[in-house]
Amino acid sequence: MPEVLEACLEKGAAGAEIISSGFSELGTTEGKDLEKKIQEIAARGIRVIGPNCFGIYCPKSGLTLLPGPDLSRQSGPVAFLSQSGGMSIDFAHTGKWMGIRFSKVISFGNGADLRETELLHYLASDPETRVIAMYIEGIKNGDAFFRAIKEAARIKPVVIYKGGLSLAGQRAVVSHTASLGGSRTIWQSILNQVNACQVQDMTEMAQSCLAFSLLPAKEFKKISVIGGGGALGVTACDTAENFGIEIPPLSAALQAKIEAFLPQPGSSAKNPIDVANPYVRPRALQEVLRLAAQDEQIELQIIIPLLYHYKPLAEARGKSVAEITPYKELAFAIHDIVKETGKPVIAVMPNPKKGADDLDILEMLALARKEFLERGIPVFDEISDAVRALGNVNTYYRKEGFGK
Amino acid sequence: MPEVLEACLEKGAAGAEIISSGFSELGTTEGKDLEKKIQEIAARGIRVIGPNCFGIYCPKSGLTLLPGPDLSRQSGPVAFLSQSGGMSIDFAHTGKWMGIRFSKVISFGNGADLRETELLHYLASDPETRVIAMYIEGIKNGDAFFRAIKEAARIKPVVIYKGGLSLAGQRAVVSHTASLGGSRTIWQSILNQVNACQVQDMTEMAQSCLAFSLLPAKEFKKISVIGGGGALGVTACDTAENFGIEIPPLSAALQAKIEAFLPQPGSSAKNPIDVANPYVRPRALQEVLRLAAQDEQIELQIIIPLLYHYKPLAEARGKSVAEITPYKELAFAIHDIVKETGKPVIAVMPNPKKGADDLDILEMLALARKEFLERGIPVFDEISDAVRALGNVNTYYRKEGFGK
Repeated sequence: MPEVLEACLEKGAAGAEIISSGFSELGTTEGKDLEKKIQEIAARGIRVIGPNCFGIYCPKSGLTLLPGPDLSRQSGPVAFLSQSGGMSIDFAHTGKWMGIRFSKVISFGNGADLRETELLHYLASDPETRVIAMYIEGIKNGDAFFRAIKEAARIKPVVIYKGGLSLAGQRAVVSHTASLGGSRTIWQSILNQVNACQVQDMTEMAQSCLAFSLLPAKEFKKISVIGGGGALGVTACDTAENFGIEIPPLSAALQAKIEAFLPQPGSSAKNPIDVANPYVRPRALQEVLRLAAQDEQIELQIIIPLLYHYKPLAEARGKSVAEITPYKELAFAIHDIVKETGKPVIAVMPNPKKGADDLDILEMLALARKEFLERGIPVFDEISDAVRALGNVNTYYRKEGFGK
Repeated sequence: MPEVLEACLEKGAAGAEIISSGFSELGTTEGKDLEKKIQEIAARGIRVIGPNCFGIYCPKSGLTLLPGPDLSRQSGPVAFLSQSGGMSIDFAHTGKWMGIRFSKVISFGNGADLRETELLHYLASDPETRVIAMYIEGIKNGDAFFRAIKEAARIKPVVIYKGGLSLAGQRAVVSHTASLGGSRTIWQSILNQVNACQVQDMTEMAQSCLAFSLLPAKEFKKISVIGGGGALGVTACDTAENFGIEIPPLSAALQAKIEAFLPQPGSSAKNPIDVANPYVRPRALQEVLRLAAQDEQIELQIIIPLLYHYKPLAEARGKSVAEITPYKELAFAIHDIVKETGKPVIAVMPNPKKGADDLDILEMLALARKEFLERGIPVFDEISDAVRALGNVNTYYRKEGFGK
């Protein structure tokens, strides 16, 4: 390996990626020495990513060293820095269907040369990156890193998943990327101080990146919730309170107008607005969204269409569920309302039917998600996921002078 | 409606279900009066479930008044009591693919006659029910309910999702099931006192029921984690610590034996055991499980097979991913190990590929889940879900004299 890198340097290559493992993460003297050699060669004029990594995925330039020939070729505003190769490829795949588009994904592994601090500096000033996500197991130079993250988080949202905060986790990161874990409390308080968004797992990281990349850069304190049925409305309220988000009753005049579009009895126009019936047409839902947006308090709307209920209807009519479900009309209707009212809408599409005999529902929901995403409408599976992601957006923009 | 019920009483019917809405949940005098009439007739000798509900689903007797002709016909140990009709049907469908089998699901809506307290008494002594789950928005008689739940939770696990603990949530439950919400702190402390398992949403309720119904009735303090790759091992450790579960290093002698079955370099036999490669054969994974179980500390094992990685392999060989993925062999191998060692195994099968072009992966995973479940092996999508459910099992059995 050192010979090959040496040859690259002589040829005048600006950079190299070392994907192989077998370096410092082994914990052996041999492995550590090999990594030191890489560092020495790098110091003489070639920048190195790795070893023990998957390298770079950059859809814009077409450069994908990650093992993902089927990754999305669309580029977008989210950059992801990962010490773990597995996490980098899983996150890139998750982003593909969830609707996160990437400027750059960089798996840097052991980080013998380029690592968290320099890469963070780079992304902070990268005009193609609006949101930075990181999976980090350990840092090399604490002071420099926290200065870098402070600087970056001022300019754009930084979502951090710090792995290895438990005792066992610290042991695991040593054998994974030869890193030191660090204390839970110290990380929490420092990330809090610099207003970085700390998440607890990859799913929360992905959902937060989706919200940061598709929602306008501001806080949304009061929201309306439409659809989903009674219990989902209750869940929405309980979860929203945990994140400091209010679902206030709409004005009585608006409630009366909304009622005209809802089936009776069983519905409620208060907010959450329980439409009582999963087959209410997109046109009627559009009117409800339009009316609810007229309440000055409302800054954002969440709609919960229960599209899986179209399956029995499709069966009764001898059609496929994708044919019969009006997800396109709904995506168009919501898109129009967002443009008209200037208030963003989030869609939540839960699905209790995920067995082998309900793959047609999974397919229809995947198609629906694409239609919504193409129109800039973020989609989540569960109301609690949507509200948690929105809570993270709110926490970031609540502080004065961030993300400008 | 009262006339029909009156006629049923005269005919000598023991019970009736009223599915219609339009009663006290409307908040009108008319609605409340109508409900009072129902109560008066019931008091003269006919028990009533409802109104404003979906009624009963009982696979053993074949009685299904819930709108789910495609619900599972297998019966099992979990009973579900729900004030919400939507939640009852969603939970029953979720249980179908997730592997929860039901003794009875009862959606009781406004609960004009039979409701939480009496139904809980009934389920506490029902020999077909080993686990009770409840979605509750409000209770009628606090004292009686808490005596009932105290009694039930002594005998078997009671998993409770209490909706309407926020201010907005309380408003929402009034229009949903005409209930009063109650304070978050009071509910938490009372449920804690009686050792009922309080969950935050339907997903956690389902996952906890799965764990309670498939795992032996005891606490599992120390576990091993196998597979998944480095970062997932780190996530496992960090999450486990949050729930008081330990992932201790295995004895050095066992680590050396395990290493013989793992690809080098990149793997780690410490615990979490990083198998470094998603294509390690079921036979080798079986040996790893067998060896890790020999460590006396280990009480339960979690295996994380990354089956979605078989897709590129399947494509390269011109086969379908379901054909090529060795999920059956893996299910058999794990089943044998559980029998042999007496230590349960939980499978976690994450999947970052859920788009419309990866439905074949979703299908394969649904088939794999079925194979695992048929052999009594609980399956979760995410390591954090598995650990949280296990944490709930542990909290229940930690207290002396519960679940006997």
